[in-house]
Amino acid sequence: MEEVHIYCPATIANISCGFDVLGVALDNVGDEMTVRRIPERTIRITRIEGQDLPLATEQNVAGVAGMALLKAAEYDGGFEVEIIKKIKPGSGIGSSAASSAGAVWAMNHLLNSPFSPLQLVQFAMEGEKLASDVAHADNVAPALFGGFTLVRSYHPLDIISIPVPQELFASVIHPQIEIKTSDSRKILKTTIPMETAIQQWGNVGGLIAGLFLEDYDLIGRSLEDHIVEPIRSILIPGFDRTKQAALSEGALGSGISGSGPSIYAFSRGRAMAEKVGLAMKAIYEDIGLEHDLHVSPINIQGIKIIR
Amino acid sequence: MEEVHIYCPATIANISCGFDVLGVALDNVGDEMTVRRIPERTIRITRIEGQDLPLATEQNVAGVAGMALLKAAEYDGGFEVEIIKKIKPGSGIGSSAASSAGAVWAMNHLLNSPFSPLQLVQFAMEGEKLASDVAHADNVAPALFGGFTLVRSYHPLDIISIPVPQELFASVIHPQIEIKTSDSRKILKTTIPMETAIQQWGNVGGLIAGLFLEDYDLIGRSLEDHIVEPIRSILIPGFDRTKQAALSEGALGSGISGSGPSIYAFSRGRAMAEKVGLAMKAIYEDIGLEHDLHVSPINIQGIKIIR
Repeated sequence: MEEVHIYCPATIANISCGFDVLGVALDNVGDEMTVRRIPERTIRITRIEGQDLPLATEQNVAGVAGMALLKAAEYDGGFEVEIIKKIKPGSGIGSSAASSAGAVWAMNHLLNSPFSPLQLVQFAMEGEKLASDVAHADNVAPALFGGFTLVRSYHPLDIISIPVPQELFASVIHPQIEIKTSDSRKILKTTIPMETAIQQWGNVGGLIAGLFLEDYDLIGRSLEDHIVEPIRSILIPGFDRTKQAALSEGALGSGISGSGPSIYAFSRGRAMAEKVGLAMKAIYEDIGLEHDLHVSPINIQGIKIIR
Repeated sequence: MEEVHIYCPATIANISCGFDVLGVALDNVGDEMTVRRIPERTIRITRIEGQDLPLATEQNVAGVAGMALLKAAEYDGGFEVEIIKKIKPGSGIGSSAASSAGAVWAMNHLLNSPFSPLQLVQFAMEGEKLASDVAHADNVAPALFGGFTLVRSYHPLDIISIPVPQELFASVIHPQIEIKTSDSRKILKTTIPMETAIQQWGNVGGLIAGLFLEDYDLIGRSLEDHIVEPIRSILIPGFDRTKQAALSEGALGSGISGSGPSIYAFSRGRAMAEKVGLAMKAIYEDIGLEHDLHVSPINIQGIKIIR
C-alpha cells in the first residue's frame, strides 16, 4: 500500500478526576490526514487545510512524531503528509495529539505494522512535547486506542483500555479564547493536600468502576475534580455557569476538557447530549463569546481508515 | 429469631495505592460473635474470649457501634454480645472493624434487616472512631460487603463493590510489634507532591481495572504506593526485606496492611500464596520477631452466619 486516508479523533483528556491519566476519543470531531510513502528518507508536510500551521517538519507535531517513528523504522523511504485540520489548535480537545497520533498510525500502517500501539504512543508523545513542552500521553493514547484509556504509569509506559458504556455521549463546547497548555500548567500547584488527593483517587476508582459496570450514576458521581478544576476554570469565562447549565439539563457530569478552554459534559443517550449541548451553547450566546459545539458518541476504534 | 452466631472477616485496608479508599475481606481469618436479643433497651457485652478487651459498652467498639444502631432502630429491646476474638487488636487487619461490623450486622439481621448495608457501615464507623479517633470506612466496608470495596466518597458516603478475581489469594504476616493507628496517622504528611499524587491515582485506576479484567499482571503492577508506604514502613522492622522476599517468591504485589504492622501480599493461586507466606515468615524467623502468618482466599460474602 502506498497511501492511506484516515480519520484522527479529537480527545478529551483529564476527564475531571483523572488529571494526567485519563482520556477518551470522540467519534465525529477529528482531523483527516493523507499519508503516502515517498522514496526519500524524510517526512514532508505538503498541505495543511483549515488552519494556519507550520509546514516545516521539525516545527509540525505530525512531522516530529513521524520523524521519531522513521528513526526507529527499518525502512529506507519516507512519507508525505497532508492534513485537513478540523480540530482547532488550542481548543483543549487534542488537536496536536490527533495530528501526532494520526501521522504515526498511518506510517505504521503503510509499513505493515512493525510497531506496537504502545510504541506508537511513544512516537506520538514527541509531537506532544513540541506542542506543550510536556510529552504527555493522555490525548495520544485515546486517539490511538479509541475509547477510554488510563495512563497508569509513564516509567515504564503502561496504558490500559477501559470499556465504553454504550449509551455514553459527549457534548463539548469550545469558547474561542486562547489558553496555552503550557500556561495552564504553570498555574497549577506543585503540592496538594493529602485529603484532597484521597478524594481524587477515590473518584478515579469510582469512574473506572462506573465505566466497567455501565453504571451511569456512578460515572456521574465520580466526575469531580477538587484539584485542577478550581484553579484552571478561572481562566475560562463562563465555566461555572456552563457546567451548571449542563448538570441542570441532566448531564451526568461536566468539567474542563484537557487544559481548556473547551468544556465537556457526559450524558446518557444522544438526545440528552444534544439538549445538554444546547444548554451549554446558550450560556456563550448570552455572554456573547464565539464558540463551537460538538455532540459526539465515544469513538471506540481510535484512528480509522476513511479510504 | 432470638440469637445469631456469625463469622466477621479480617480485612486489609489501603492495599498500597488505595490509601483510605480501598479494602478487601479475608475468608479464613476472622472473629466469631454471638448476638442475642434481650428485653432491656441496652447493649451488653457479656463475654470476650481470646483477648483482654473492655466489656463496658461505651469502651468497646462493638458496644459503641451497636448503640448507634440501637438509637436509630424502632425496637424497644436490646442485645447481648459475645465475642470470640481471633484477630489481634493492633495487627492492622481490621480487628476493631470486625467487631464493629459484626455487631451491627447481627443486630440488623435479628431485627429483620431494617437498615441498608450503607447504614450499617455508618453505625460501624462509630466503633472505628472509638478505636482510632477517625471514623474511617475502609475496613468496615469490606467486612460488611465482602470482596473489594472502594470508598469513593465520605460526604455523602458512597461505597462501590469491586469484583474479585477467582484465583486471587492473600498472604498476611503480622510481626508482633505495636503500632497505634492514631500514631501511624500522625507521621503522614498533610500535603503531597502533585506528581506523586498523579502516580497514585493512575495506580488506583489500574488496580480497579485489573480487578474487573481479572488481569493479574495489571493488579501486580498497580500495587505501588509512593506516598504512605515510604513513611509508614519505617515503623515496621523488616518491612523492605519481607516485601522483597514476597515479590522474589512470585507474589503479584505486597505492601502494608492497613496502618501496619501486618504486611500483605497478593498471589495468583493458593499454592503460590502459601509459598509467598513462608518466604515472608522466614524473614521474621531470621530477625527473631514473633509473628503470625495467615494465607487466605478473598472473602466474597462479608459477614456470614455460622449457625
